[in-house]
Amino acid sequence: MVAAVGSGLVKRTLIIGAAGMIGRKLTERLARDGGWGELILNDVVPPTAPPGAKAVVSDISGIGEAEKLLENRPDVIFHLAAIVSGEAEANFEKGYRINMAGTWQLFEAIRRIGDGYRPRLVFTSSIAVFGAPFPDAIADEFLSAPLTSYGTQKAVGELLLSDYSRRGFFDGVGIRLPTICVRPGKPNLAASGFFSGIIREPLAGQEARLPVPKSVRHWHASPRAAIGFLLHAATLDTAKLGTRRNLSMPGVSVTVGEQIEALRRIAGEGAVKRIREEPDATVQKIVEGWPRNFDPQRALQLGFKADSSFDEIIRIHIEDELGGRYSG
Amino acid sequence: MVAAVGSGLVKRTLIIGAAGMIGRKLTERLARDGGWGELILNDVVPPTAPPGAKAVVSDISGIGEAEKLLENRPDVIFHLAAIVSGEAEANFEKGYRINMAGTWQLFEAIRRIGDGYRPRLVFTSSIAVFGAPFPDAIADEFLSAPLTSYGTQKAVGELLLSDYSRRGFFDGVGIRLPTICVRPGKPNLAASGFFSGIIREPLAGQEARLPVPKSVRHWHASPRAAIGFLLHAATLDTAKLGTRRNLSMPGVSVTVGEQIEALRRIAGEGAVKRIREEPDATVQKIVEGWPRNFDPQRALQLGFKADSSFDEIIRIHIEDELGGRYSG
Repeated sequence: MVAAVGSGLVKRTLIIGAAGMIGRKLTERLARDGGWGELILNDVVPPTAPPGAKAVVSDISGIGEAEKLLENRPDVIFHLAAIVSGEAEANFEKGYRINMAGTWQLFEAIRRIGDGYRPRLVFTSSIAVFGAPFPDAIADEFLSAPLTSYGTQKAVGELLLSDYSRRGFFDGVGIRLPTICVRPGKPNLAASGFFSGIIREPLAGQEARLPVPKSVRHWHASPRAAIGFLLHAATLDTAKLGTRRNLSMPGVSVTVGEQIEALRRIAGEGAVKRIREEPDATVQKIVEGWPRNFDPQRALQLGFKADSSFDEIIRIHIEDELGGRYSG
Repeated sequence: MVAAVGSGLVKRTLIIGAAGMIGRKLTERLARDGGWGELILNDVVPPTAPPGAKAVVSDISGIGEAEKLLENRPDVIFHLAAIVSGEAEANFEKGYRINMAGTWQLFEAIRRIGDGYRPRLVFTSSIAVFGAPFPDAIADEFLSAPLTSYGTQKAVGELLLSDYSRRGFFDGVGIRLPTICVRPGKPNLAASGFFSGIIREPLAGQEARLPVPKSVRHWHASPRAAIGFLLHAATLDTAKLGTRRNLSMPGVSVTVGEQIEALRRIAGEGAVKRIREEPDATVQKIVEGWPRNFDPQRALQLGFKADSSFDEIIRIHIEDELGGRYSG
């Protein structure tokens, strides 16, 4: 257990993938809370560093790069870096090089330090490690049979994390994040983008496209909940985890129709009217292969906390991203 | 489907790991059956090559070695090569280099040929991809949570095999072999060695040590059944597999006590009296973490055939290894 957080015993915390959306929010939170020692922020593009933090621009899949990040032996390591799903599918070699080989190289660099060095390592995995056909709710003993290269690479990372932890090279926790909703920022090209878009754009007074039927069910967590998962994974007593160190995080399972009803309750009919149904067979086919619901008993027992409802997920977006203001 | 076997359309078959016990038996069988084209036999030690076969001594984890084996584009590849469980646990780096990186390098070498090359690839995985706690019988959707580095490396191989097959780089089938019993040859240092030893040694008039209680249950297949699995995996219609290309093979689940009763039925009391109970806490602890029984519905539906009983497993040993002669 990293009970040392807040006690001054954590001298250094490393975030790999610090320039991404989750990385930025995690950095802000650790800097605000304090107790995490010096923050070392790594990414392939310059991350925003709060005062006192150190930014390092490098690619951990490069030879010797992981070693440099570990020079001062961070006590806690958040490994969030990854080529995203769509890019890993489009660029097979790059996905394997960064997501799989890069993760292995990082784990190897930690192992080779030896000398009793055994940091807490939090790895963001994904529900993409699961592939259809699914049961109605995916329980903790369901197999990883990914249907994408990204999911495969994350599943390999999970296996390595368990074995390297079992061997005592680090103290790892892998967390499978639900789809993050509402993702702040501009619409992106991810197939899952519409889950956030149909909330974010109407609240900003913009039109949003809905490419799938309202009956589509999916698994969500707010950015705030995701940061909560990361902090809990970094501080929980891993003796309670046993040898199975990868956990499906709790979330909110809703249909697109239920998402829209929540938007109507919070922002009214005007917001809902900005959603334009534009069926897209390609997106529908991709989404059919995605998990709809989970039964994440272990994570709940270990104290990971989901958002209470999709209404809360929308309110968190309004509070954290919009300063309380939105277009009704 | 490699329906081409026997039709003259298979020009070349490559066996990687041909000098091992399974590799030798597979080589003999393919040479005897015919229809597999030129046999290319690879191992780190010289494999025994029947007339017309080509032996290549090399380590596939070496740079460029996998490429050399693929020069003449074998239509069927059996990838049996691995550092065994005990050695992979004792020598962490070697296990990962050969079992994980070596397998990935082989898969990459196949992918990089491109040009429509898409061989059938049969990969021997292991029930070591599963780790306790288990249900009474492990079904096809149970998670891979290995408790050894060997099991981890095999589980990674399975994930890669599925993804590379999905992407069309080869047509892969991964088969999780039960513990092979009765293993011919001298006793070895594997923790599982006694499962074979308590049958093999008494039949040869030798004493055998039993380090675990008779209540220990385990999952077995004869060498003859294992060769049957490999041939079936090489020729089945993979369209029936869908995207989940790794299968737990059928087997025989018996307790050590039931093994001994089968020995008594076949070879009599004299053979049984050569088994000496010598409890070994270390072996007992290792064996506790092993699967006891499976419910391999998919493999059975796809036509993989197990031995009918442990009695049959003993009779196969007497027929195939002892020329019908044994000490009663």
